[in-house]
Amino acid sequence: MAAGARAAHGESTGIGLLGLGVVGSAVARAIIERHRQGDPNFPLNLKSVVVRDPEKKRAVELDRSIISTDAESVIANPEVGIVVELMGGENPAFDYISSSLKAGKPVVTANKEVLSKRGGELLSIAAENGVQLFYEASVGGGIPIIGPLMNDLTANKIQSIRGIINGTTNFILSKMAHEGADFNDVLAEAQSLGYAESDPTADIDGFDSLYKISVLARLAFHTEVPVDSIHQEGIRNVHAKDFRYASELGYTIKLLAVAQASEETGLLARVHPALIPLDVPMASVNGALNAVEVEGDLVGPLWFQGPGAGPEPTASAVMGDVLRIAKGGPGAAKPVQTPAPFDIAPMGDHVCQFFLRVTVADRPGVLASIAKVLGDADISIDSVLQKDSDVENQSADLVIMTHPAQEAKMQDAVSSLRQLEAVVRLDSLLRVETYPNRS
Amino acid sequence: MAAGARAAHGESTGIGLLGLGVVGSAVARAIIERHRQGDPNFPLNLKSVVVRDPEKKRAVELDRSIISTDAESVIANPEVGIVVELMGGENPAFDYISSSLKAGKPVVTANKEVLSKRGGELLSIAAENGVQLFYEASVGGGIPIIGPLMNDLTANKIQSIRGIINGTTNFILSKMAHEGADFNDVLAEAQSLGYAESDPTADIDGFDSLYKISVLARLAFHTEVPVDSIHQEGIRNVHAKDFRYASELGYTIKLLAVAQASEETGLLARVHPALIPLDVPMASVNGALNAVEVEGDLVGPLWFQGPGAGPEPTASAVMGDVLRIAKGGPGAAKPVQTPAPFDIAPMGDHVCQFFLRVTVADRPGVLASIAKVLGDADISIDSVLQKDSDVENQSADLVIMTHPAQEAKMQDAVSSLRQLEAVVRLDSLLRVETYPNRS
Repeated sequence: MAAGARAAHGESTGIGLLGLGVVGSAVARAIIERHRQGDPNFPLNLKSVVVRDPEKKRAVELDRSIISTDAESVIANPEVGIVVELMGGENPAFDYISSSLKAGKPVVTANKEVLSKRGGELLSIAAENGVQLFYEASVGGGIPIIGPLMNDLTANKIQSIRGIINGTTNFILSKMAHEGADFNDVLAEAQSLGYAESDPTADIDGFDSLYKISVLARLAFHTEVPVDSIHQEGIRNVHAKDFRYASELGYTIKLLAVAQASEETGLLARVHPALIPLDVPMASVNGALNAVEVEGDLVGPLWFQGPGAGPEPTASAVMGDVLRIAKGGPGAAKPVQTPAPFDIAPMGDHVCQFFLRVTVADRPGVLASIAKVLGDADISIDSVLQKDSDVENQSADLVIMTHPAQEAKMQDAVSSLRQLEAVVRLDSLLRVETYPNRS
Repeated sequence: MAAGARAAHGESTGIGLLGLGVVGSAVARAIIERHRQGDPNFPLNLKSVVVRDPEKKRAVELDRSIISTDAESVIANPEVGIVVELMGGENPAFDYISSSLKAGKPVVTANKEVLSKRGGELLSIAAENGVQLFYEASVGGGIPIIGPLMNDLTANKIQSIRGIINGTTNFILSKMAHEGADFNDVLAEAQSLGYAESDPTADIDGFDSLYKISVLARLAFHTEVPVDSIHQEGIRNVHAKDFRYASELGYTIKLLAVAQASEETGLLARVHPALIPLDVPMASVNGALNAVEVEGDLVGPLWFQGPGAGPEPTASAVMGDVLRIAKGGPGAAKPVQTPAPFDIAPMGDHVCQFFLRVTVADRPGVLASIAKVLGDADISIDSVLQKDSDVENQSADLVIMTHPAQEAKMQDAVSSLRQLEAVVRLDSLLRVETYPNRS
């Protein structure tokens, strides 16, 4: 327990809040309201809030005297027992978190980016200084997933974590699946509804899921998983046609973030749109919901689902961590294990079925030439759909579902396919998620 | 932290295990195997195991020297740092748990019965002695649900907990739903498959769910919920016909355990078979799975699902608690809050739609007489099915779905219905679970 963090009996712990966006405002509101109510389960008071622009209008009314623009002086304030970092981004968040930890003050953060890129360093600093660094809110919004991995499931060797952990992309893909709509139209609608940012890159291109799966994988597998070791692919190239053909084959399409590990294969993490069999629960996670499936050697498969974003759910996770510390919760952070128990495997090792959609010249012999390329790469075909002949352009859609094949071989085959004269365009290459125990 | 419980650096904590049934054996196996592997995340050693019959063949091989029949001397052994109680039942478990706590030794238990009946006392004893009493394994097998309520969701005012928390009854009801089979046939099959005990009362009559919801409600609502204040109804009287008619109306039937609370209505807990709309997730929880839905004011609705029983999943939960303590986890148990924040509401206050199946005389005017009884009790009818006329006996099935009505009024109406000459038999009275936010 850090000096100053734990409330003496009947006293409350002072919170220093860095950042007052939508989540920061919800946290501030929760602390103020329950402090006012004298809730005995909520021994906290909001001591200081750091913002860039003190004049900006906020979603919460605060006494001007607790607003500051100087993070370091708030961190140094002896009345601040716990620092809550909700600014997001790598810098200056990294500096503020490490300053706090070095000052012996526990930190609660929702910042997946700094945790994924520099979480290993921060956990080491926290461990050296004997203080906690908690980050439940960084993944899955209000869903308890970090806590269960950190506390409840520690007797397990975790085998896999598989989740839909970005609400924006799931909202968009769900709409595309149900309405047959095109990506750009649905993105525009999601932006107008506030489900997607005006610059949607972080969500759409998979950065958000990437950061989150890196954070989960480090914790679950006691292994540092650098973000650039994780395969990353967003949803910009998923087309309405892919949903149509996937559905004919018994699948829907979701943006999955996955980390799987075994002593033999090492740890492989990946973020990409995946075909999901319609009869597994992940296929029914729609809209802005998040869901995470964890498999452990003792417990078997577990399922966590809930609101993966939004100010109040995220505040729930932030405040859960804060209260855990304030009430004298568990000990200091532990650094990542060395030597790492797992090697990091490259995406080329991944094995799955592939869904390949190609625009081809509509003439005899085309399928044979494509099948030969695949066969030469040791990839066999499970099924073929030929659709949507375009008489004017003498072209057609060819959809191929392969048997399980290795990623590296598939990528080689794709390079060769692009060279074929009969291939007008390679429209989609999507991976099918494997559910081995499916009945 | 209790004396002796926390491992010094590099040392391991001695475990005293009370009970060596299927779960105890799985726990013993996990400790022995990972101790042998020198797993740094598993700083435990099995010091002593208490059994009634040391000669009995077990599912795990143990060194005879660590087997004892004297629980109190194992508890007193200074090399035992944590006591794990897996005997089940109220006595002598209560005495052993309280001896351990009074000796300053933290306890981990999977015993829902002693926790529901005397958990308030035990938590007070633990708090007085400054030690932990953890019980993740008592509800939901391997699903982390106690941990999230105890740690991750503490910033929330919990509004409701609703779950399928008995695998045996869910296995039986799922079979009845899918195969149209009768209760007694499915029970016999479940017994032969090992999904139901030879004496199935604890599961079938709802005791197991009752104990579990009492444990969850105490924790979530900071209020002591005596088991005899909880409405308890098992599944013996659910018939194949009920499934058939429920399905025509868009429902399936599950044994639910529910606790809901608000400052206005108080805390109402109940265990009974309930009609569940086919399109909500709870309707798809089949077989021996467990699922718990928690709703908090900040976080909104959360969903936890996984294997609710079985030796390994339960051992996962037990060992998670043990490791939390051994690694210097959170502080001592907290007693239940006084004064209790909620009054306990009687089942008579509960309001829901009702599904009523009656065998009636097949002649004119019968429906009118039944509708009059309901109308006099202020209960209005949503829909009526008349089915399965039995020409020989001049009787028929009448299935009535009411609009939402108060339990107390419904029970009065049922008494009057039984008096009606036209009513041959009141076959089923089932409650429909309300999902207010359903689209």
